Amino acid sequence: MKLTVQDIQQAQARIEPHIHRTPILQSQALNKIIGCELFFKTENFQKIGAFKARGGCNAVFSMDEASLQKGVITHSSGNHGAALAWAASLKVAPCTVVMPDNAPAVKKAAVAGYGATIQLCEPTMAAREGAVAKLTEEHGYTLVHPYDADEVIAGQGTAALELLEQISSPLDIVMAPVGGGGLIGGTGISVKALSNAQVIGAEPENAKDAWLGFKSGQRLAEYSPNTIADGLRATVGVRNFEVMTETVDDILLCSEERIVEAMRLIWTRLKIIIEPSCAVPLAAIMDQPKQFQGKRVAIILSGGNVDLDALPW
Amino acid sequence: MKLTVQDIQQAQARIEPHIHRTPILQSQALNKIIGCELFFKTENFQKIGAFKARGGCNAVFSMDEASLQKGVITHSSGNHGAALAWAASLKVAPCTVVMPDNAPAVKKAAVAGYGATIQLCEPTMAAREGAVAKLTEEHGYTLVHPYDADEVIAGQGTAALELLEQISSPLDIVMAPVGGGGLIGGTGISVKALSNAQVIGAEPENAKDAWLGFKSGQRLAEYSPNTIADGLRATVGVRNFEVMTETVDDILLCSEERIVEAMRLIWTRLKIIIEPSCAVPLAAIMDQPKQFQGKRVAIILSGGNVDLDALPW
Repeated sequence: MKLTVQDIQQAQARIEPHIHRTPILQSQALNKIIGCELFFKTENFQKIGAFKARGGCNAVFSMDEASLQKGVITHSSGNHGAALAWAASLKVAPCTVVMPDNAPAVKKAAVAGYGATIQLCEPTMAAREGAVAKLTEEHGYTLVHPYDADEVIAGQGTAALELLEQISSPLDIVMAPVGGGGLIGGTGISVKALSNAQVIGAEPENAKDAWLGFKSGQRLAEYSPNTIADGLRATVGVRNFEVMTETVDDILLCSEERIVEAMRLIWTRLKIIIEPSCAVPLAAIMDQPKQFQGKRVAIILSGGNVDLDALPW
Repeated sequence: MKLTVQDIQQAQARIEPHIHRTPILQSQALNKIIGCELFFKTENFQKIGAFKARGGCNAVFSMDEASLQKGVITHSSGNHGAALAWAASLKVAPCTVVMPDNAPAVKKAAVAGYGATIQLCEPTMAAREGAVAKLTEEHGYTLVHPYDADEVIAGQGTAALELLEQISSPLDIVMAPVGGGGLIGGTGISVKALSNAQVIGAEPENAKDAWLGFKSGQRLAEYSPNTIADGLRATVGVRNFEVMTETVDDILLCSEERIVEAMRLIWTRLKIIIEPSCAVPLAAIMDQPKQFQGKRVAIILSGGNVDLDALPW
């Protein structure tokens, strides 16, 4: 069944009591530097420090009580793990998170802090999925995939719903980073249903599996990313690729250097802490500025969970 | 003449079109760690990245046009310089800022960015005041003191006015850091006039001239501070000491280590960038937690202008 804006609106009603309505920030100084009017949806202020709280909460709160009490499981480079652990803790349900052993320390600590069990594995999709399959079979856990699931995509789409409610006059473009495709997918559905704005995904040149798939019409099942944007190292999911193909107008790339530059610019000008993944849309604008000049552009800042002892400058 | 809340209300009407009404942030995770209910007034999001925009704007917009066009001058370790440069630029008036040569690079750049002329001097009060006196005599500039002036104190007091409007149920305590005494003075007048909350200033142990003066009843004219909180290296002013004595209930101290710890806690939990000076009230709470347990405590976060290449961890 096709995921629609009604699914996202239902998700919004379901998760609203538990999540933050994050503010929109602007900076005149930054607008002047970049040459367009930027609106930042600050999901770094969201519960668990990232938009992933939305999808995790919607997935857990959509489950029946019996399955919930057996437990939920997921694999995640970090924020989805924290989101699921947090959402499960609200329902007092057991939660296991399979994490790549190179995940930032701060993200491991967050998952553990919500009372979930952590299982470390090699930093490959095969290793992650293998560990999840094994534990699921042994314990009867329900998998809440970090992005390739309708409830998760619907949850992530609520960030764009809010954004459209918060910014009253029409936007030209809405942007989000592309990792597994949960955020850009949900954003695409919301924005296309409720506005005339273009939807543009942004991806690091060094993790361009979504871009390659989008341009060729064929999703890549295997890809080895190598980017500082640790939240975007996942490969786009099957459901996500379908949704993306229907609702996203374009995907733009950016260099690693530009990601660091854009991240620093947001830290300095907006005085907020964002993780490298969040800087990818602004980096993409800076790498191909022409089509954005004078436009009204909203960017969903995906999260703020940064290891302060390993900053990229 | 005694400065009253009416002066602060007039300042608010005067500067409102030019400044941001900065949001109040809260973090449940942080409240749990500290053991009280904290409300953060985010003046790091203010114009020029600090509350000083309020005092600078009120001073400049209170001046007559003839004096303004001759030019304004000040000495400042940074944020007040940027504030005066910014406010003068709104009126297209000439502005000179005398800065200690050890001021952070980011603060020098901000002053220059608003089109003001920078004059470097030795990092002592005597050198700063000497340079200002000389230039004022030569050019007929009007001095806008960084804190020891009624218009400046009244401007800074508008942050607390807003805070009291934004937090509807009664507060137990309002805190602000103490440098020259502009912010704590204005805060004291506003809070005492409009609420029953206690007003508590916070100062680094290594810059405790206000504390020494407050406890002895005698303002210190000379003091050599040695603190990471670069915004608090000034000595409390004459007017500021008078106001402080009348409106502040107590001044608490904190260690340098605790300032860094509190700064990092605010970065990590609130996902916002604050300069070390802002962390001083939270550090003081952490150093003497007992009297704050279970209380509703508002902290004015003074600014967010940090040199990202010289972080204290």
